[in-house]
Amino acid sequence: MSTLPDRLLSMEKHNSIFESAVRALPLPVCAAFGDAARPRPVAFAASGRVLGTRDGAKVAASFPDSVAASGNAVLTSSGINGNAARGRRVAVLFSGGPAAGGHNIVCGLKRALGPDNTLLGVRRGPKGLLEGNLFEIGDADVDGVINTGGFDFLGTDRTKIKTAAQLGQARETCIEHRLDAIVIIGGDDSNTNAAVLAEFLFRGVKADGTGVQVIGVPKTIDGDLQIGDLLPISFGFDTATRIYGEMTGNLLQDTRSSLKYWHFIKLMGRSASHVTLEVALQTKPAITLISEEVAEKKQSLSFIVDQIARIVAARADKGINHGVALIPEGLIEFIPEMNALIAELNDALARHAAEFAAVPDAEKTAFAASRLTPDNARLLASLPAYVVRMLLAERDSHGNLQVSLIPTERLLVDMVKTRLGEIGARIPFAAHCHFLGYEGRCGAPTLFDAAYTYNLGLTAGSLILDGRTGYMATVGGLDRGGAPQAIPLTGLLNIERRHGKDEFVIEKALVRMDSPAMRYLSSRRAAWAAEDLFCSPGPRQLWGEAARQMPISVALNSGAESLEFRIG
Amino acid sequence: MSTLPDRLLSMEKHNSIFESAVRALPLPVCAAFGDAARPRPVAFAASGRVLGTRDGAKVAASFPDSVAASGNAVLTSSGINGNAARGRRVAVLFSGGPAAGGHNIVCGLKRALGPDNTLLGVRRGPKGLLEGNLFEIGDADVDGVINTGGFDFLGTDRTKIKTAAQLGQARETCIEHRLDAIVIIGGDDSNTNAAVLAEFLFRGVKADGTGVQVIGVPKTIDGDLQIGDLLPISFGFDTATRIYGEMTGNLLQDTRSSLKYWHFIKLMGRSASHVTLEVALQTKPAITLISEEVAEKKQSLSFIVDQIARIVAARADKGINHGVALIPEGLIEFIPEMNALIAELNDALARHAAEFAAVPDAEKTAFAASRLTPDNARLLASLPAYVVRMLLAERDSHGNLQVSLIPTERLLVDMVKTRLGEIGARIPFAAHCHFLGYEGRCGAPTLFDAAYTYNLGLTAGSLILDGRTGYMATVGGLDRGGAPQAIPLTGLLNIERRHGKDEFVIEKALVRMDSPAMRYLSSRRAAWAAEDLFCSPGPRQLWGEAARQMPISVALNSGAESLEFRIG
Repeated sequence: MSTLPDRLLSMEKHNSIFESAVRALPLPVCAAFGDAARPRPVAFAASGRVLGTRDGAKVAASFPDSVAASGNAVLTSSGINGNAARGRRVAVLFSGGPAAGGHNIVCGLKRALGPDNTLLGVRRGPKGLLEGNLFEIGDADVDGVINTGGFDFLGTDRTKIKTAAQLGQARETCIEHRLDAIVIIGGDDSNTNAAVLAEFLFRGVKADGTGVQVIGVPKTIDGDLQIGDLLPISFGFDTATRIYGEMTGNLLQDTRSSLKYWHFIKLMGRSASHVTLEVALQTKPAITLISEEVAEKKQSLSFIVDQIARIVAARADKGINHGVALIPEGLIEFIPEMNALIAELNDALARHAAEFAAVPDAEKTAFAASRLTPDNARLLASLPAYVVRMLLAERDSHGNLQVSLIPTERLLVDMVKTRLGEIGARIPFAAHCHFLGYEGRCGAPTLFDAAYTYNLGLTAGSLILDGRTGYMATVGGLDRGGAPQAIPLTGLLNIERRHGKDEFVIEKALVRMDSPAMRYLSSRRAAWAAEDLFCSPGPRQLWGEAARQMPISVALNSGAESLEFRIG
Repeated sequence: MSTLPDRLLSMEKHNSIFESAVRALPLPVCAAFGDAARPRPVAFAASGRVLGTRDGAKVAASFPDSVAASGNAVLTSSGINGNAARGRRVAVLFSGGPAAGGHNIVCGLKRALGPDNTLLGVRRGPKGLLEGNLFEIGDADVDGVINTGGFDFLGTDRTKIKTAAQLGQARETCIEHRLDAIVIIGGDDSNTNAAVLAEFLFRGVKADGTGVQVIGVPKTIDGDLQIGDLLPISFGFDTATRIYGEMTGNLLQDTRSSLKYWHFIKLMGRSASHVTLEVALQTKPAITLISEEVAEKKQSLSFIVDQIARIVAARADKGINHGVALIPEGLIEFIPEMNALIAELNDALARHAAEFAAVPDAEKTAFAASRLTPDNARLLASLPAYVVRMLLAERDSHGNLQVSLIPTERLLVDMVKTRLGEIGARIPFAAHCHFLGYEGRCGAPTLFDAAYTYNLGLTAGSLILDGRTGYMATVGGLDRGGAPQAIPLTGLLNIERRHGKDEFVIEKALVRMDSPAMRYLSSRRAAWAAEDLFCSPGPRQLWGEAARQMPISVALNSGAESLEFRIG
C-alpha cells in the first residue's frame, strides 16, 4: 500500500491532484472537425469577406506574395479535408508573455496533424527558432500538458525576428530542420512578425523552390487583439480575468466583512483596459477607472482623484467605510497632462542625459523641473516623492519611461487621502494596495480557454494541411457551436511611426466608449458606487454547472444571448 | 425572453454564476447527525480524556464554575439528542479577521437549532454584542449565504470583551435580548474571550438565576489554533492556503515559462508558519523559509540571505535563472538578532519618545543608533533605508513595531542581490515581490472548509441544546467520517505575561520541527532547490474528482492515509 509520503512524491513535477484530474477532462470540438474523440482537419475556402486597412496599398507592395495568394480574403471551413497533406514537418513556438491555453494549442495542432505529419516544438520562443533549438513532440508529451497552464512545455521569449540577419537565421533553421510550416503563438507584435516571416519564407526555401508556411495564433491576456466578430477575443484573457475577478471578489467580500478597508487594485494590461472592464463587469466594485475614457474625456489627475474622493466621502456619509477601486495598469499614460509631462521629461532627460547623471540625487528633481514648461513643472511638483523618483528613473532601451513600475494605485490612495482631508473632517479611509499581474498569466485555463485553444490548434493544423500561409487561425461563433476560420494577416496591417521610422503593425484594440460592454459599465457604475451591489465570481470551475462561462464583455460585445459558451 | 443585460443585473448582490450554483451544493454530515438532508442535534457525554495545562490550578481558581461543570473533560457525541432543549434564543457572532466557512457555521447552527429555537445574528462582531446590535436569522437568510465566503452576512470586528464594564454590557445584551446562549466564532484570543464570558455568564443572568451558555468555534486562516488530534486544524486555513497555493503554482508555472524571473512571495500568518509550510507542500518551490526553524536554529539575517543566494547561484550554474521563494509574514521577528534589535529599539524609542520626535527626519537613524548597543547599531546600519524607516516608524498602541508593514520580501531580494554580486560575476537575478494576504481570507470555502464548518455549526448547536457551556465545538476524524466533539476551554488556558500583567491565553500552536509535515518538507527541500519539481494545485474545485482534498500538512500530521477528507 502506498503511504502518504509516497503519494506526495508522485505529485511532484506537475502531478497535483488537480493537474492529474484535468488532463482527463474531455474537450468539445467545433462540428466542422467531426467526432470530438477523433477530430480531423478541415479544408478552407475564401469567404466573400475581404479585409483591408488605410495602408492597404503599401502593405500590398511590401507583402506581394502573401496578398496575391490570399487576396486578403477571410477563409472559412469547407468541410473535412479529404486531401490533407502528409509528411509535413511543422514547428510551433510561443512568443511573448504566457497566457493560459497555450499548451492546448499544441495539443490541438498535434491532433490535427495526426500520425502522418511531424510536430516539432521550438524551445524558448523566437530566439529558439533562430538558434534551431527544436525537438519532436510525441503523443505522450501533449497528453502530459493538456489543460495545464503556462508556456512551460516549450518556454517563451520576446525576441522579434526583424533584421535581415534574423530572417536569414530563421530560414537556416527551416532548411536545417526541413520545416514545411511554423506556427507562432503570440500577440499583436508576434502576429505582425508572423506576417513578415510568411512573406519572407513564401518561396525559395526548399530545394524544389517552395516556401515554408507561417500561421499565427492570437494570444494576449490583455485582450487588445480583437477583430470585431472575426476575433471576439484572444486566448488567455478569460483565464486571467477570472483569476483577477476571483481575487477582486474575495477582496470585496473582505471589505464588507471587515467593514473598514478600501482596496485599490491595479490590474495588468499595458495599454488597453479590457481586463479592468471585464473584472468590473464580473464583480461590480464601487470604482472602476478605464484608461481610454480618461483619455477621451481628457480627465486630469486631480479630476480623477476628486471623483474618487467624492465617492469615498458619499459612502462614508452612509456609514460605508469600505470599497474596492479597480485601476488599469497603463492609466498614467492615458491622463493627458501626465502623458505630456512624461513626453517632455523623456525628451529633456534624453537631451541633458550626461548633465542629469552628474547632478546629485537630492537635486535631480529641481534640475528636471528647470528644464520643463511651467505647467509640467507645476504638475511634477504636485506629485509625491516616490512617483517623481520613478518619473526620473532610468529609461528603457527605447528611451521610454517604464510605466509599469509607477505605483499608480499608491499614488491615487495618497492623493485621495489628501483630498479627503480638504473635503471634510475625519472621513475614514484605510486603504490597501494590490497589483494583480503575473499570477493571471499562467493559471490553469478556464474551460472556455481550454476548449477555445484546443480548437485554435485544430484550426492552425488544418490551415497547414490545406497549404495556407500568412493567416491567423481563429474560431468564430463561440456561443453558437464554433467555426474554424482564418484571417489574412496582411489584411490587418497598418503603418505606424515608431522610433522615427515606418513599421507595419496590427493596431491594438482599445476599449471603445460606444461598445456594449463599456456602455453597460457606464449605466451601472453610479449604482455600484452608491452601495454594495458586488458579486463574487468565485474560483473557476472545470466541472459542474458553473464551468461553461465566457467573458461578460465578450458576450455583450458579440451580442450573445447568454454567458454560456458553446463549442461543438 | 430575458436579455443579457437583465441577466447581468440579476447577478448583482452575491448572485454570480458561481454563487448561485454553489448554494445548491449538498454538504455531507457526520453519521452522528443522522440524515444529511435533515441533520438532528446530538447529545454529549464526557470522554475519559481530561485536559490541563501547567497553569491548571490558577485556571481552576479563576474559572470555578466552568471547571466544576466540565471537569475539563473532552465531550464526545452520545447519539441523537431525544431530549434537546426548545425555545432557546441563541446569538452568533464573528470575531477577528474573516475566514472561509464562517457562513456555513451559521447555517449548521440554524439547522441544529431547528424551528423550535431562535437564532440571532450579532452585527459587527463583539462590539455589536456590547451594543446589542442583533437581528433574527431566518431560513431564507442561511439559504442565501451557504457555501459563500467572507463574514459579510454579519460583519466582524476585533473588540476584546475584557473589562468589567464590557462584561457588564454583554450581560445587559443577554438580558435585553433574552439570550440563552452565545456562539463566538474566532481565533485563540476570541476563544479565550469565550472562556471568560462563559464563566462570567455562568449563573445569575436570567430571572430564574440561571446563566447564559457560551460556545467557541475555532477559526483562523493562520492555522495556529491546533490541538493535537482534538483539533487538527482551524477552519479557513484550507481555503486560504489553497488560494495562496494556486497563486504560487501560477507563479511557478510563469517562472518556467518566462525563464527569467524569481518571485519572492510573502504569505500571511502573523507568527506561525503553518500557511507557508502548507503552501510549500502543495507547490514544492525552490526556497521555503519557516520562521520557527529560523528561531530554533538561531539563524542570522546574513545566514538566511547567504543560503538563498547559494541556491540562486547553484541554479544559475545549471542555467535555471528562475524560481520561487516563500517567506512567512512574521519572519523578521523570528530572526534572533532582528528580534533583539527590535526589542531594544522599542525600548529606546519609548524611553526617548519626545526627544526622538523632535529630531529631524534625516537624523533619526543616527539618533536611534546612538541609543543602541554596538551589535544592534551595526545591524541597523546594515539594513536598507526603507527597512530602517519602517523600524523607526510609529509603534502600535502597545508600543510594538508593526511587523506586517516591513517588506521582508523586498529586503531579502535586495540583500540577495548584493550577496550575489559578492559571490560571483553576473549571476542573473530578476525578482518580483508579492504579498498574498487579504485575498485568502474571504474566498469561497473549499469543499473541505464548507463541509467542516457546516458540521462545526451542527456541533455548536448540539452543545447548546444539550445545555453545555464553556466548550469549543470541534469535529474530529476528518478522514474517517468525522465525529462531533467538544473541548473544555478552561483545559486549554495558560497564563502569559502581557504588558506587565498576567493574562489567560490559549497558546498559539507553532510549527514543530519534529512534526511529520515539517520533516517531510525538510526531506525534500534540497531536491526542490536543485531543480524544478513543482506542481500547480490549480483553482479549488467544488464539483468533480479534485474537490475532496484536505490540507497536506493536516493529513501528514494526523497520520491520514490519503489526502481525501471524509465526512459522513
